[in-house]
Amino acid sequence: MGSLNTNGGLSSVDVLIVGAGPAGLMAATWFARYGVNARIIDKRGTKIFNGQADGLQCRTLEIFDSFGFADRAWKESNHMLEICLWNPDEDGVLRRSDRIPDTIPGISRFQQVVLHQGRIERFFLDSLKEHSDIRIERGVLPQKLTFNQAASEDEDGYPIEVVLQHLTEYEINPEQSKATKGAATSDGLYRSNMAADDTEELLSKAIANSKAGSQETVRAKYMIGCDGAHSWTRKQLGFELEGEQTDYIWGVLDIIPITDFPDIRMRCAIHSASSGSVMVIPRENKLVRLYIQMTTTEKGDLPLDRKNITPQMILKCAQKTLAPYKLDYKYCDWWTAYQIGQRVGSNFSKDERIFLAGDAVHTHSPKAGQGMNVSMQDTFNLCWKISSVLNGNSERSILKTYQSERRKIAQDLIAFDHKFSRLFSGRPAKDVMDEAGISMVEFKSAFEKGNMFASGVAVDYGASVIVAKAGNAAEQEDGNDVEFESDACRVVGKQDLANNIKIGMRMPSFKVLNQSDARPWHFQEILRSNGKWRIVLFAGDVSKKEQMARVQKLGKSLAEPNSFINRFTPPGKPVDSVFELLTVHSAPRATTDLHDFPDILHPFSERDGWDYWKIYVDDESYHEGHGRAYEHYGVDSKKGCMVILRPDQYVSWLGNLEDVENMDSFFSGFMKVRN
Amino acid sequence: MGSLNTNGGLSSVDVLIVGAGPAGLMAATWFARYGVNARIIDKRGTKIFNGQADGLQCRTLEIFDSFGFADRAWKESNHMLEICLWNPDEDGVLRRSDRIPDTIPGISRFQQVVLHQGRIERFFLDSLKEHSDIRIERGVLPQKLTFNQAASEDEDGYPIEVVLQHLTEYEINPEQSKATKGAATSDGLYRSNMAADDTEELLSKAIANSKAGSQETVRAKYMIGCDGAHSWTRKQLGFELEGEQTDYIWGVLDIIPITDFPDIRMRCAIHSASSGSVMVIPRENKLVRLYIQMTTTEKGDLPLDRKNITPQMILKCAQKTLAPYKLDYKYCDWWTAYQIGQRVGSNFSKDERIFLAGDAVHTHSPKAGQGMNVSMQDTFNLCWKISSVLNGNSERSILKTYQSERRKIAQDLIAFDHKFSRLFSGRPAKDVMDEAGISMVEFKSAFEKGNMFASGVAVDYGASVIVAKAGNAAEQEDGNDVEFESDACRVVGKQDLANNIKIGMRMPSFKVLNQSDARPWHFQEILRSNGKWRIVLFAGDVSKKEQMARVQKLGKSLAEPNSFINRFTPPGKPVDSVFELLTVHSAPRATTDLHDFPDILHPFSERDGWDYWKIYVDDESYHEGHGRAYEHYGVDSKKGCMVILRPDQYVSWLGNLEDVENMDSFFSGFMKVRN
Repeated sequence: MGSLNTNGGLSSVDVLIVGAGPAGLMAATWFARYGVNARIIDKRGTKIFNGQADGLQCRTLEIFDSFGFADRAWKESNHMLEICLWNPDEDGVLRRSDRIPDTIPGISRFQQVVLHQGRIERFFLDSLKEHSDIRIERGVLPQKLTFNQAASEDEDGYPIEVVLQHLTEYEINPEQSKATKGAATSDGLYRSNMAADDTEELLSKAIANSKAGSQETVRAKYMIGCDGAHSWTRKQLGFELEGEQTDYIWGVLDIIPITDFPDIRMRCAIHSASSGSVMVIPRENKLVRLYIQMTTTEKGDLPLDRKNITPQMILKCAQKTLAPYKLDYKYCDWWTAYQIGQRVGSNFSKDERIFLAGDAVHTHSPKAGQGMNVSMQDTFNLCWKISSVLNGNSERSILKTYQSERRKIAQDLIAFDHKFSRLFSGRPAKDVMDEAGISMVEFKSAFEKGNMFASGVAVDYGASVIVAKAGNAAEQEDGNDVEFESDACRVVGKQDLANNIKIGMRMPSFKVLNQSDARPWHFQEILRSNGKWRIVLFAGDVSKKEQMARVQKLGKSLAEPNSFINRFTPPGKPVDSVFELLTVHSAPRATTDLHDFPDILHPFSERDGWDYWKIYVDDESYHEGHGRAYEHYGVDSKKGCMVILRPDQYVSWLGNLEDVENMDSFFSGFMKVRN
Repeated sequence: MGSLNTNGGLSSVDVLIVGAGPAGLMAATWFARYGVNARIIDKRGTKIFNGQADGLQCRTLEIFDSFGFADRAWKESNHMLEICLWNPDEDGVLRRSDRIPDTIPGISRFQQVVLHQGRIERFFLDSLKEHSDIRIERGVLPQKLTFNQAASEDEDGYPIEVVLQHLTEYEINPEQSKATKGAATSDGLYRSNMAADDTEELLSKAIANSKAGSQETVRAKYMIGCDGAHSWTRKQLGFELEGEQTDYIWGVLDIIPITDFPDIRMRCAIHSASSGSVMVIPRENKLVRLYIQMTTTEKGDLPLDRKNITPQMILKCAQKTLAPYKLDYKYCDWWTAYQIGQRVGSNFSKDERIFLAGDAVHTHSPKAGQGMNVSMQDTFNLCWKISSVLNGNSERSILKTYQSERRKIAQDLIAFDHKFSRLFSGRPAKDVMDEAGISMVEFKSAFEKGNMFASGVAVDYGASVIVAKAGNAAEQEDGNDVEFESDACRVVGKQDLANNIKIGMRMPSFKVLNQSDARPWHFQEILRSNGKWRIVLFAGDVSKKEQMARVQKLGKSLAEPNSFINRFTPPGKPVDSVFELLTVHSAPRATTDLHDFPDILHPFSERDGWDYWKIYVDDESYHEGHGRAYEHYGVDSKKGCMVILRPDQYVSWLGNLEDVENMDSFFSGFMKVRN
């Protein structure tokens, strides 16, 4: 393949990311924010421009917002508000049997939306360009992986060596067209629906790659395989996916529908009496995606071969299911047919040096709209950890929590998808005696429960060095060992201090006001993904003298020369560079001023003066109501509490204002003394 | 000046815009959306990068949103929520005497924000690039204007001829640096605070202008002078600004303040006992703008010369006013000093062919944060009118409403600014007997009233062919003649059908749900600036048979071959290309479907099927509450009403569902039969 020119140079990089889909791009985005020396390669010649995955969970939007681009997704996407369930009535006539909200009200400030993968890749690419020099190296194929296990615990070592082949234009194009096609062929109409900023990229010739046809060898400290279901990286490691292929074949059509079906702009699950099922996913730009079951168990049907499926066949199936409503289209943006198993990798890493993420460790059907989300959240979980090891703040021990935290999520996803697919694919039960049919009551209940799972906010990480909660890590069956050296140094947070801030789960968001300018913020908006750990001080009612005395004492303690803040912050760095202190008090805003609080809670800089963006208040805003944050978080509004948040917004610990020593123990469990 | 090469070609353009500041850019933006053949020239070599005007009214943000970029301004700007008034107490010690909301709660879905002019120019430039081929031609100076008055009423004529000089780089640079300086010199620090997308433009060499040093002659149908307070266009027309120069000199500092003054992130008006006044405007990127009065009437002070003022002098004045609080800075982004009169042009146009807008027809002090807003709203008012004359939909008569509508606004602005400046510049009264002093009670009251004016939503246009309300246009003292040919054909809307939809004012915004997908929208979000007139049908409770019958009858009437919709829409164009029908009904969402409504309310297209974005409902949303639109608009929730909105969201007419003939008369007053 290609030229045999192997005299390309030998170079080193801290992290090599293989694959520039959503999981790889999320990884690169973290490294960009931490300033980590990383490269990201992809064998394809361009990004994705249409089709593919499309659902975005609430939690994914929260994460996008922490990087500053949720607003773009929110603006361009189609918002899904309601799910309509359609079934045959007693006379066998299709009718709407139920309406349920698509996102459970109140669980997030975002709701589930739909936007195709190509736009999401665009937001990542723009963000990388704005914050770093990391660029996707396209048309680059990994060819050989060598791993020196003996060096895996050497912090300065480069145990990984990868040979990369830089493809010629001729070699890229077949790959590209294969990638664009998905599992089937496109009907070629798809480009007219493209965004302006993508069109520019597509029309410009691929940037001349001066290395085309050559090989190079890269040494790396860490490597992340985000290279999809057929992961090259996984194969090199000899790891397997465990699970089964499914019988079902599904067709997917992205069309502008011409129809009299009244709920075509709702998310719909439609079970016909005996002509299969259709799921309707309304999308951006007038498009609607239809997932259509192509195989039936009715006698007389021959087994279908996925390769022979055409859009016309998919449309015909959909027309049958939707009858008596009419369905047709003039414009098709993309289509495919798939047959997919639910499988999970046994190992998510090789010695915490080479990691697998996304489809490389879990595959499942796309109908639940989960795939892209779980994949991005894999590397969102992993890469702040790798970064904080590389920058010298954390011990390597925290890397084990990647598998312990994410493998369980993948398993839950597979179980969810398995149940959901079965319910979706079966024909509706004719009555309670019809055991071969699917109960529509059960189906609705599964849909409702699925909504909580599908929001992404239900993720609850188990006990580990970075999650100070009760429980035995070994019993979590995540296939990894994150036990504590001894129970003596183990820290467990006080969960009862805030009944809606759950240790192990992401910090929920309610509105608070900035003390200095009265502006309302959703609390999560302040929790930017910038690599900092956060200590949130719920300072309580500081208009009361005794409470303010507690806050002053805490401030003094945190500012001590040997406090954990000073010990774990590198010398010469700003006091908030590793730990950011955020205060939310519950006294009326007008009763207090910024300067009433200890200096360390609003640190001073020679150039910029006092910091006005650290102290917030739970009070009424002029234009956006009262957030009632203390009430919603379940925190005592007089006495308050303290919360430790990881750089990814997950809750590590809860304690009282006096529990500074306990916090110190928590951080001492994995942080390195710098000062 | 420059080369005398005058053999440049003779070309024609429909509209020539002189000046690419906010007023000129807003003009170009309308022409871009209408597809009008327009050119925009500016003598400066680059856009503005910092300093200058900064306040954005609620109404301006509503307008930005109608063009699709309010979100960028909202995200990057500093939001001002509260005004704090500081005065000496009885012992002469500075203290906070009051807090008032900066934007009156409930008047708009946006609040007043601050963002420097350079960013706003960026949003316009990006929007022009996305929607048209119109580009700013920089380094181009108009040199000679010839106007053929005889051709001014000839619709196909080009009565305007302008000779343009394309400057060489040498000629541009002095101009550019003069422009950047404002009224004084910059301290040279300002570029480090610049946004990434601006830096790119600044660092790139000016695009080689192949016409540099040459002249060309352009014939135009229309011309708009947006060329500032020293307008070249105005001078060619021999028009004057009327008004007076003020005595007051003000200094402006854009700094990152180092201070213990607790309200430095609030908008503050600070009157010291005898050391002058300071206005604090907190801005984006940690900056704060201080407006500082430099002249006093105290004896012993020599008159200052504006040219001798330095940033250190301005800082010293501010320090005196703020004492005993400390104020200093390490970083200054921009500074200036100004002395400005309040003046208004007598004429806003020459024969409705050459128009003046923005600072070219009104100047006033920048403290109220109004200038950029009123300037942009001038051309927002003007250019949809010019466009609809050029595209053949409207008679030229509507162009007279530019002066009748905007000159009154300019006069109001001047009066507001005059009062506000006087109150702000004076020293506080020592007691009620101190007649030379300013009453702080009066000052607070003026501030509160000013807030309504300063929001921009109080604008109320007088009666004209496009505003069907009672009143005598001649009595509006706007210096223009917009009288009706005869009272017989005059239409007056029924104001009592909706007490919060005021004929002559902009349509307020409340949340409604899309009937087809349950998504909540602020109603204004649907009123995009795309050049269409809108007929809003408040369809009432369509779950009642009699009410649905009224709606069906209306639909039938509007669809008649000789209805005004069909007569005024060019043949071959979609039915919604001149008039867009939007329906908001008040029946519960689940009781009705899209297809229950007449076809013309959700028109069918061969390619895209039914239109799902025309029919809305006033009902509870899943995640954003109940908009209660009928209640807030003051519309009868059973019977509804109809509203005509101009392309700029101002209300033209109100009527009942049966008043189709009256609507027909209204449109017949200025529209041209096309079909």
